Amino acid sequence: MPTRHPQLNAHGELKHLLTIEGLSRDLIHHILDTAAGFLGVSDREVKKVPLLRGVSVFNLFFENSTRTRTTFEIAAKRLSADVVNLNINTSSTAKGESLLDTIDNLVAMHADMFVVRHAQSGAPFLIAEHVDRTRGNVHVINAGDGRHAHPTQGLLDVYTIRHFKKDFTSLRVAIVGDVLHSRVARSDIHALTTLGVPEVRVIGPRTLIPGGLEQMGVHVFHDMREGLRGVDVIIMLRLQSERMRGALLPSAQEYFKHYGLTEEKLALANPDCIVMHPGPMNRGVEIDSAVADGPQAVILDQVTFGIAVRMAVMSLLAKS
Amino acid sequence: MPTRHPQLNAHGELKHLLTIEGLSRDLIHHILDTAAGFLGVSDREVKKVPLLRGVSVFNLFFENSTRTRTTFEIAAKRLSADVVNLNINTSSTAKGESLLDTIDNLVAMHADMFVVRHAQSGAPFLIAEHVDRTRGNVHVINAGDGRHAHPTQGLLDVYTIRHFKKDFTSLRVAIVGDVLHSRVARSDIHALTTLGVPEVRVIGPRTLIPGGLEQMGVHVFHDMREGLRGVDVIIMLRLQSERMRGALLPSAQEYFKHYGLTEEKLALANPDCIVMHPGPMNRGVEIDSAVADGPQAVILDQVTFGIAVRMAVMSLLAKS
Amino acid sequence: MPTRHPQLNAHGELKHLLTIEGLSRDLIHHILDTAAGFLGVSDREVKKVPLLRGVSVFNLFFENSTRTRTTFEIAAKRLSADVVNLNINTSSTAKGESLLDTIDNLVAMHADMFVVRHAQSGAPFLIAEHVDRTRGNVHVINAGDGRHAHPTQGLLDVYTIRHFKKDFTSLRVAIVGDVLHSRVARSDIHALTTLGVPEVRVIGPRTLIPGGLEQMGVHVFHDMREGLRGVDVIIMLRLQSERMRGALLPSAQEYFKHYGLTEEKLALANPDCIVMHPGPMNRGVEIDSAVADGPQAVILDQVTFGIAVRMAVMSLLAKS
Repeated sequence: MPTRHPQLNAHGELKHLLTIEGLSRDLIHHILDTAAGFLGVSDREVKKVPLLRGVSVFNLFFENSTRTRTTFEIAAKRLSADVVNLNINTSSTAKGESLLDTIDNLVAMHADMFVVRHAQSGAPFLIAEHVDRTRGNVHVINAGDGRHAHPTQGLLDVYTIRHFKKDFTSLRVAIVGDVLHSRVARSDIHALTTLGVPEVRVIGPRTLIPGGLEQMGVHVFHDMREGLRGVDVIIMLRLQSERMRGALLPSAQEYFKHYGLTEEKLALANPDCIVMHPGPMNRGVEIDSAVADGPQAVILDQVTFGIAVRMAVMSLLAKS
Repeated sequence: MPTRHPQLNAHGELKHLLTIEGLSRDLIHHILDTAAGFLGVSDREVKKVPLLRGVSVFNLFFENSTRTRTTFEIAAKRLSADVVNLNINTSSTAKGESLLDTIDNLVAMHADMFVVRHAQSGAPFLIAEHVDRTRGNVHVINAGDGRHAHPTQGLLDVYTIRHFKKDFTSLRVAIVGDVLHSRVARSDIHALTTLGVPEVRVIGPRTLIPGGLEQMGVHVFHDMREGLRGVDVIIMLRLQSERMRGALLPSAQEYFKHYGLTEEKLALANPDCIVMHPGPMNRGVEIDSAVADGPQAVILDQVTFGIAVRMAVMSLLAKS
Repeated sequence: MPTRHPQLNAHGELKHLLTIEGLSRDLIHHILDTAAGFLGVSDREVKKVPLLRGVSVFNLFFENSTRTRTTFEIAAKRLSADVVNLNINTSSTAKGESLLDTIDNLVAMHADMFVVRHAQSGAPFLIAEHVDRTRGNVHVINAGDGRHAHPTQGLLDVYTIRHFKKDFTSLRVAIVGDVLHSRVARSDIHALTTLGVPEVRVIGPRTLIPGGLEQMGVHVFHDMREGLRGVDVIIMLRLQSERMRGALLPSAQEYFKHYGLTEEKLALANPDCIVMHPGPMNRGVEIDSAVADGPQAVILDQVTFGIAVRMAVMSLLAKS
């Protein structure tokens, strides 16, 4: 995995969005402020602004995700961009063309922006470094790479927290579940610590919590009840069904018993605690329906804010 | 299957289009009149009107149908809407997300319209009831649900009949084939009886005609020659090849002999009888090529009118 | 395969683009001149001209090719057309609908342009003849049919040569590889000979060179070193991996040894020789990376010019 983050241009503006790691607190707030300005666009009768008219956005999904692809497609179309969807597993790479040859071809078609989803950590970095080296005027957005990062999810999560809690500097935030395999958790931790959240907790079974979190200033809990006590924000993670099959966990029932968020466990958090989830939810596995549909859940607000955050990121990149 | 039809708003305007059952004669004529006004748009050099500019239309196809999806996509684009295509079988539901969670997510992205195709009868009702209960400003169009309804097909069929026959109140209309499994037949019967067609006939083998049709005022024939005598309109239904494999029928040859529309059988109808088919046709199974390509066939007119009817439905829903 | 080329209208203008065979030198230059005018559009901030606003372009891909489909989609969108993508193998033809019934349906939806990719040689001709016979106002572009033709690739190849070499009338051009199965080679040979290239060479193993090339004025070489001597342009062809499996060739290593373009072999050509490839490349099979990424390669320029050429073809057809 690359350690350099070539996402800022010479003026410190965002050229690519590859990871939240290394973004300054000011820059994150600038993105969130920009998103706030776009929130109204989706409420209008004509849900469009002409900011990206004639701009060519390519959704490069090397890993299938209709849901994430849709959010970027909607965001781009509301900015009036032209969007081309490419499911690359069924395409050139199947014919043996290398990833970077595919990228070179799309750059030669005068692409303006790549939204990249890839099962391998680091792929969007590789692409961004390559386009910078060869041409320099295409913007890359990481829409999720392996276990590494999902920065627009991280940004929409902190947008949601800012919206409901106003201030980050007195919050306790708990992230619950399969942190080991979660790019969302990684991006959230970077965003939260950068924004000054004093206490980030991670809760999960030993098999699903990576080492080294304490060095990032994160508190690790294996007992969910203990970890939820007094928190203001709970971010539930999706449990991939392959973890079950991979025998990292005994069963969904067992998991739910220990790490599923129920009303009873939620009552241990602060009374105005909000409940978040990146979706899609496994009801009855990591979250009980009573909580998912309850008054403290802000899961659908996350989706709404996610469109505005992606519009903000795209418009800021296009201006850099 | 829900029995309530929550498709009208408090002012009696169409909010969703879920079924033709329960629509008034005036409302159907209003839709057809609106469609007539759109017919010219597709003939222009610039085939577009800005009526739905900035409106987000989602094609939610839980069952694959490129053909139907295309007609809605074209209709929406000619109204200047932004269209996002989702093939949901390959998407979130594959990840175990529930149908209604998927819907909630799309609503949270500020969708304006869902065009829903689903193998299960009632799915579009379920979706419409859910969005009404939770937010209230998304419109649902049923693009075919199981064996239940295909209302835009029913509307384009009566548009076609009105175009060629002007008046419904003295017509004999025969629907021929696999009525049992046909959502088209159901929607046609509702539309035709509502519009005052005095004699609707249904023709087919006993294994493919459902019970209870007589109570709907429909005349059932098992002998095609007898049933076609004196009719003004013939609507042929597509024979699904799985009916053959499912042993409901002896063979395609046998079916064609008894229920295939040939020139010889067509001669039993009135001389100005028109021949319709929802497509795609099985030539040589339910219809002979001489008839499909003959002077009485209006099968391609149906397709042309279908775009205008879908534009009409979308524009009326958007105004409600 | 049809022998008539119904691609010109009564005024000698291009109505369809089916093959380069039979196009006049003037008409080819007119297409290339038009493309030159569009080259600037993709460089602008707003990469769009309103020439095809409200025009309905259907990408009819009976054979999957995300890469080619993308180039046409981008070209059409930069002309402001509405684009609908249809992967027809998963669609109506799977339901047993005939090719021409599918076409009739799309024509009835008031399609303006079909971009057709088909595994069978002659399919786009069949479609063009059919739409001419039945309606007359839809334009067909062949985006590759079997082993027969790929005219937009041929046009972008001669655009590239004209760009770098200015004049065709003193050039030696070598086409290297699997000519037998290559629609690109066929289209290139027609374009080059029409434009007055005095010496077109074809280089490849006996099993991959068709008979009859000498009658077309083409010089055949089986020794690559001999064939490259003194050429100004090298067009490498993609080696389909199925040729290897089909035992027409011993192995990729063996093929590379004899027919792979290396720096050492390239040195036999003229010093300012350009290297072209239609993509996607098999690095290490038909071309060495040192050459593919070297200073004489113009492979990515071909891609850029390809968008402009496709915009030119679409806009000329729309005006005819």
